[in-house]
Amino acid sequence: MSFSLTILGSSSAIPTSGRFPTAHAVNMHERLFLVDCGEGAQIQLRKYKLSFGKINHILISHLHGDHIFGLFGLLSSYRLLDRKTDLHIYANPRLKTILDEHHKHFYETPFPFSIIFHPVGSKKKQMIYEDETAEIFTIPLKHSIPSCGFLFREKPPLLNLRKDMIEFHKVPVEERVNIKKGADFINEKGERIANTILTLPPRKPRSMAICSDTKYTESILDQISDVDLLYHEATFLENIREIAEERFHSTAKQAGMLARKANAGKLVIGHFSSRYTTADPLVNEAREEFPETYSAEEGDCHRIEQTRQPESS
Amino acid sequence: MSFSLTILGSSSAIPTSGRFPTAHAVNMHERLFLVDCGEGAQIQLRKYKLSFGKINHILISHLHGDHIFGLFGLLSSYRLLDRKTDLHIYANPRLKTILDEHHKHFYETPFPFSIIFHPVGSKKKQMIYEDETAEIFTIPLKHSIPSCGFLFREKPPLLNLRKDMIEFHKVPVEERVNIKKGADFINEKGERIANTILTLPPRKPRSMAICSDTKYTESILDQISDVDLLYHEATFLENIREIAEERFHSTAKQAGMLARKANAGKLVIGHFSSRYTTADPLVNEAREEFPETYSAEEGDCHRIEQTRQPESS
Repeated sequence: MSFSLTILGSSSAIPTSGRFPTAHAVNMHERLFLVDCGEGAQIQLRKYKLSFGKINHILISHLHGDHIFGLFGLLSSYRLLDRKTDLHIYANPRLKTILDEHHKHFYETPFPFSIIFHPVGSKKKQMIYEDETAEIFTIPLKHSIPSCGFLFREKPPLLNLRKDMIEFHKVPVEERVNIKKGADFINEKGERIANTILTLPPRKPRSMAICSDTKYTESILDQISDVDLLYHEATFLENIREIAEERFHSTAKQAGMLARKANAGKLVIGHFSSRYTTADPLVNEAREEFPETYSAEEGDCHRIEQTRQPESS
Repeated sequence: MSFSLTILGSSSAIPTSGRFPTAHAVNMHERLFLVDCGEGAQIQLRKYKLSFGKINHILISHLHGDHIFGLFGLLSSYRLLDRKTDLHIYANPRLKTILDEHHKHFYETPFPFSIIFHPVGSKKKQMIYEDETAEIFTIPLKHSIPSCGFLFREKPPLLNLRKDMIEFHKVPVEERVNIKKGADFINEKGERIANTILTLPPRKPRSMAICSDTKYTESILDQISDVDLLYHEATFLENIREIAEERFHSTAKQAGMLARKANAGKLVIGHFSSRYTTADPLVNEAREEFPETYSAEEGDCHRIEQTRQPESS
């Protein structure tokens, strides 16, 4: 099952010739989530062959233009393409007002699809999405306006059946789901076979956190602990940390520190200030804290592989 | 003196992976005008190395999203770059309301520069800009909402002095400007030397018309007659002219017919429907009517050269 992050935009507020404003596509179990929607996101989606139509959920971290100005064009395209599927938008409640006013100016009729608006706070963590296999939580951030990150997490997978033991104890097919969920097995003679005999531990549930925009804050460590992939903004280098603090942004070093303290598997940094023509100095700085750091390069897809896949039935 | 059109976006309402929505940069005598501002226009400006800061005039043909959704990001960048110079925007008056509401949602303080808003009608032609050497008029178009094109026109240049005759008749320097404007010369003996003896005709004033979006209408012929360069939308091919008419757009054949009837020097077609993966069939169709047709390709700069430059003093 897929679990990946594709970078669509990596610049901070002022785009450059080589970098679009912030937008990311998360593929979690073949469902496509758009996280932030900077200007040009729809163009990037097409460029990197991510199907427009498969996006049913758009998560917005905060209401700065470089994270949402692509929304107007994307909605317009959905309308012209005669989209029918509900579109869920998770964002600060003010966005609903903005979208309503926008609609009034540009369209005389309702969209052919419904926008289901989910207001999102930024003071405390909140589960905003859940399905059979995964869930998404907000991560309260510290920015100049209300802002939150997003934690994508698999639910603990089922136990893996030991094929040899299942056959040996003649476990009927209809019992196997319960055993995968942790139940013991009572055989025909009435004997209890402990679950630990019949199963192997499941693979580790995968997780990914996307934190942008925010100043350095360790308050997020609890939530991002042990994530396989942390995307964290790194707008500036440490030598201008005062500017970073003043503007409620982070430095590359700070992003690296957080990844190290959180014991993350991998760090991707982005939201680079337009003053940097290449991300190299930012990546190098973060790597001093956390070697597994990569720069957000548009079109790059960071896949989280299933780390342990024991023998299964 | 420059007179050129650079294509920044060539798609119609739904952008494709290879085409941005409509935006054009017109360089008229080293002044840079932005005509329409589809999503991503600021990114294209940077990509094609057209200086952001040199744009002091933005002309908007009509208020469909694919012609203005790039405006929000462009204004945001001007703010972050601490622009001070006045920015003139020429558009349907409703755009002012839209921009005012937008400002209220996204910014707590005024921009560091002034937006001078010039309301533009679309029922009759209107001069919207004039300087010492050039002028711009609106061209009323026929679209589903009020829409206008723009005619960029040089003022008739001054006559060219014949260096040999100026020397022969000993014309003092201070008299020469009047002669360039058409005056005769009275020499020291009181003799009148006719202007036609002293001058050569000026080069032809250059002109360019940008017409998008519109259905086919010959009502514009009067205004676009003899333009050196006509940009005209060609959203569809002639085989679906009914769709073009229904949506108030033009076909490539119609664009070609207009260029031919207007005796244009060159035709550039754009605003292609996303159904066409290449502009070739559209260009081929228009060329049957008007051979000097070219497709709008992003980054292409169409220069209008000075066609006649006689010997000058």
